[in-house]
Amino acid sequence: MKDDRVLLDHGSGGLATKRLIEEFFLSRLANDYLSRLEDSAVVPVQEGRLAFTTDSYVVDPIFFPGGDIGSLAVHGTINDLAMQGAAPMALSMGLILEEGLMFSELERVAESISQACIEAGVAIAAADTKVVPLGKGDKIFINTSGIGRVPKGLYLGAHRARPGDVVIVSGFVGDHGAAILTARSNLSFGTEIKSDSAPLHALVSAVLERCPSDKIRLFRDPTRGGLATVLNEIAMSSNVCIEIDQDAVPIRQEVSGVCELLGLDPLYLANEGKCVVVVEEDHSQLVMDALSGLALGRHAAVIGCVKELGGVGRPVVTMNTSIGGRRIISMLSGEPLPRIC
Amino acid sequence: MKDDRVLLDHGSGGLATKRLIEEFFLSRLANDYLSRLEDSAVVPVQEGRLAFTTDSYVVDPIFFPGGDIGSLAVHGTINDLAMQGAAPMALSMGLILEEGLMFSELERVAESISQACIEAGVAIAAADTKVVPLGKGDKIFINTSGIGRVPKGLYLGAHRARPGDVVIVSGFVGDHGAAILTARSNLSFGTEIKSDSAPLHALVSAVLERCPSDKIRLFRDPTRGGLATVLNEIAMSSNVCIEIDQDAVPIRQEVSGVCELLGLDPLYLANEGKCVVVVEEDHSQLVMDALSGLALGRHAAVIGCVKELGGVGRPVVTMNTSIGGRRIISMLSGEPLPRIC
Repeated sequence: MKDDRVLLDHGSGGLATKRLIEEFFLSRLANDYLSRLEDSAVVPVQEGRLAFTTDSYVVDPIFFPGGDIGSLAVHGTINDLAMQGAAPMALSMGLILEEGLMFSELERVAESISQACIEAGVAIAAADTKVVPLGKGDKIFINTSGIGRVPKGLYLGAHRARPGDVVIVSGFVGDHGAAILTARSNLSFGTEIKSDSAPLHALVSAVLERCPSDKIRLFRDPTRGGLATVLNEIAMSSNVCIEIDQDAVPIRQEVSGVCELLGLDPLYLANEGKCVVVVEEDHSQLVMDALSGLALGRHAAVIGCVKELGGVGRPVVTMNTSIGGRRIISMLSGEPLPRIC
Repeated sequence: MKDDRVLLDHGSGGLATKRLIEEFFLSRLANDYLSRLEDSAVVPVQEGRLAFTTDSYVVDPIFFPGGDIGSLAVHGTINDLAMQGAAPMALSMGLILEEGLMFSELERVAESISQACIEAGVAIAAADTKVVPLGKGDKIFINTSGIGRVPKGLYLGAHRARPGDVVIVSGFVGDHGAAILTARSNLSFGTEIKSDSAPLHALVSAVLERCPSDKIRLFRDPTRGGLATVLNEIAMSSNVCIEIDQDAVPIRQEVSGVCELLGLDPLYLANEGKCVVVVEEDHSQLVMDALSGLALGRHAAVIGCVKELGGVGRPVVTMNTSIGGRRIISMLSGEPLPRIC
């Protein structure tokens, strides 16, 4: 290509689009589906249940410690499938490029998408590229949708939490949010905070192998809105209360530090490689054993339990604080940190 | 909501997002999948083959004669599935909203998505909403992905055209492109040109009912890049030449008029409710019969045929012109009309 930036022509659907796709994507993501360049991929399926999900990624900046918009888009959609216990079968990728995007940046993102797909063992089966004029987008937005096979007999869902269940989180919370925050503000804290962006399907399947699946109520990944928001969603869907212990929630010291400095609460920061597991009490140790055996789960912790609705008669999430108090953890209402994913 | 515009808060993933989704989308698109508000939908599937596709829509303006970005996003993805002969099972919807978008506009788009889904008999099973700051997007971008069931024994593809096959187009070409063009430039030609945006799955299935499916080589919808680009893609994939007759290509007089005035070629204008069918010669009348019986296919026409590679030894699309000449129809290279879909 003569120029070193994306032009409107590259979104024409004609020759320029074809060249852009061939040069940046087909060379890296080549598979039987994509190489056919048809309007849709045709994927063989077995009888059963299919998880189907979509997410758009608009993170700013597009490169951050621990990842970039490309790997994030792959991991995020794999994780949405994994939260239903599904093994990812195929992803789609819809790119919206801003005119003027440097080819070098596009290349870096394409490479990262490719690496993330290889590491997770999943293929991009369908793709689409659009270009919008300078000032009508922001470098690159990526939509990834995905399909995955749900194991037979597995019925998970945010509505399945029951009083007495145990609430587990698979590791340190707030890393992704803190990484974006510090990358964006150019804050330096001695130690660089890295995003936790990672695919969780292997972790979920390890848990399902170890623990009888009817004892697992749900998996949920606390992305936008953080742990606090996800716990509230579970409480509302299941019409229960949830009680957590502040001291039990794993938070890195650096993340606590950034939060204190900026007046943020790590419970509301996004995570991109963590999940919440709600499990019947008697089987919670099996889940902890499975998690502890994995790199992605080695800082897993029991953080609380599910309770009956209390005197107020509505779902509430409460936290027993380090200093012996108790406070209500509400859902995120505003936006402390736009464009986190 | 207090304000009448989209705010960054609406993309937080917290309470504001929940309210936006409930007010604008859940009320209109309610179905068992969406109402669960899980990270992915779980869809039952039978053993077989699944078509899986994605497309992002960035059309400007978002409202145009004959449709808007919402109906276009539904139709476009249904059509990508339909081109594989697939009946749409479920769609996903990823919205990227620009801060400051009027709620009234969002409401109109949501209503249009809902209507298009009802008319096509397909549900939005998974959705996601992001908000980007003012000036980092353009009102609304929509990604729709979709899954659909491919009938047993049906193998279509752009690589299947054979010399001797007949090339059919299902109706007037260039309407969508011309509609966007006139809407954008505020040109008036007495008659308003409307986009042809429409779902094609019923048309495709009518053709497949009438004509033995092993005689149909492929369906393809000439969207970005128009008829000319799609014919070139087919010729290249199948390694054949294609010859069409200018007089046979159905083009509305108003569309020809706009094209003449602006120096554009209608063969390169986008269509959003048309398809190209390549069929074995002996069965082409069956396809024409099926098309003619439908409102969406009543202006269908045989426009040409597939030929062996000629003296040049490479795939070429040629057109016999009205004045008795012959010219090469190349692929669209540049972008005469950015953001057409």
